[in-house]
Amino acid sequence: MHNRKSIGKKLLKKRLICRVRGAIHARRNMSFSQTLGQKIPNALWNLGRLNHVAIAVPDLEKAKSLYQNVLGATVSETVPLPDHGVYTIFVELGNTKLELLHPLGQNSPISGFLHKNKAGGMHHICIEVDDIKKAMSDLKQKNIRLLSEEPKTGAHGKPVVFLHPKDCDGVLVELEEA
Amino acid sequence: MHNRKSIGKKLLKKRLICRVRGAIHARRNMSFSQTLGQKIPNALWNLGRLNHVAIAVPDLEKAKSLYQNVLGATVSETVPLPDHGVYTIFVELGNTKLELLHPLGQNSPISGFLHKNKAGGMHHICIEVDDIKKAMSDLKQKNIRLLSEEPKTGAHGKPVVFLHPKDCDGVLVELEEA
Repeated sequence: MHNRKSIGKKLLKKRLICRVRGAIHARRNMSFSQTLGQKIPNALWNLGRLNHVAIAVPDLEKAKSLYQNVLGATVSETVPLPDHGVYTIFVELGNTKLELLHPLGQNSPISGFLHKNKAGGMHHICIEVDDIKKAMSDLKQKNIRLLSEEPKTGAHGKPVVFLHPKDCDGVLVELEEA
Repeated sequence: MHNRKSIGKKLLKKRLICRVRGAIHARRNMSFSQTLGQKIPNALWNLGRLNHVAIAVPDLEKAKSLYQNVLGATVSETVPLPDHGVYTIFVELGNTKLELLHPLGQNSPISGFLHKNKAGGMHHICIEVDDIKKAMSDLKQKNIRLLSEEPKTGAHGKPVVFLHPKDCDGVLVELEEA
């Protein structure tokens, strides 16, 4: 049999669990609305949406035709970006986009990748952040290697930085200040 | 107590809300067929959102920690999917998700990939479709090789099919009926 004291304790425990659950629930809701801006408490910067998945392709017209005529996606015109050494075509998927990349010029940053991957392949993913300088400083402290000391201007004219694939499970991750 | 007039008003309000909701719903569907669903006139099937980007990782806990503690994303618990030969962790990015994959059991479909890519890497992208059977039949006619004759049940319990990477610029593309 339980005496009043133990019942009181149980009630207290139950209330405590309810409160903790409530807090977790509130925290979850908070974190959802934030990350969409994500959740580390008092974070100095926030991770955001997946901006794009970049795919390096050996034949740009063929790749465009695959997404446009075979899969029925809305695709952009071919955009030459000489400063970045690539031609790009954007494939609109509603919630995010694919970015088809093809080398432009002699020193294209994706030539090496296409040399190793003749058929093409996924080159990088780009995730948005709200403050790239704070993100860079924080990630450096957390021993994530950055591929440049300062943010560069990305293909969309916004500040970007790449994280070392060896620190990101073999994935080249681009952060873009959105 | 409510009189007949106030009940009538309420009913009218309710109907109005229903109509507005209906219009919003129709608008959404329309924009889905136009944008996500994109644009081939009289298309038998429509391409939709990017459901996820799958990343095969050699160390699941380390990968989870990268996205959760270093990058500050909301991540799921580890979900074992013995029928698919993988453990999965979902990384929520607001508009879409990353799916971290790690082999489960002897015949995991991602063991070969991790053997070739020791550090891990992007394994596939998954795009939603509204009718997988129609998509499969149409893609076959367009000479895109499918990796199964019939749709299989994917990790989310929905019908999926994989397209041959050699027909998709070196990218393994999964289509999922959403």
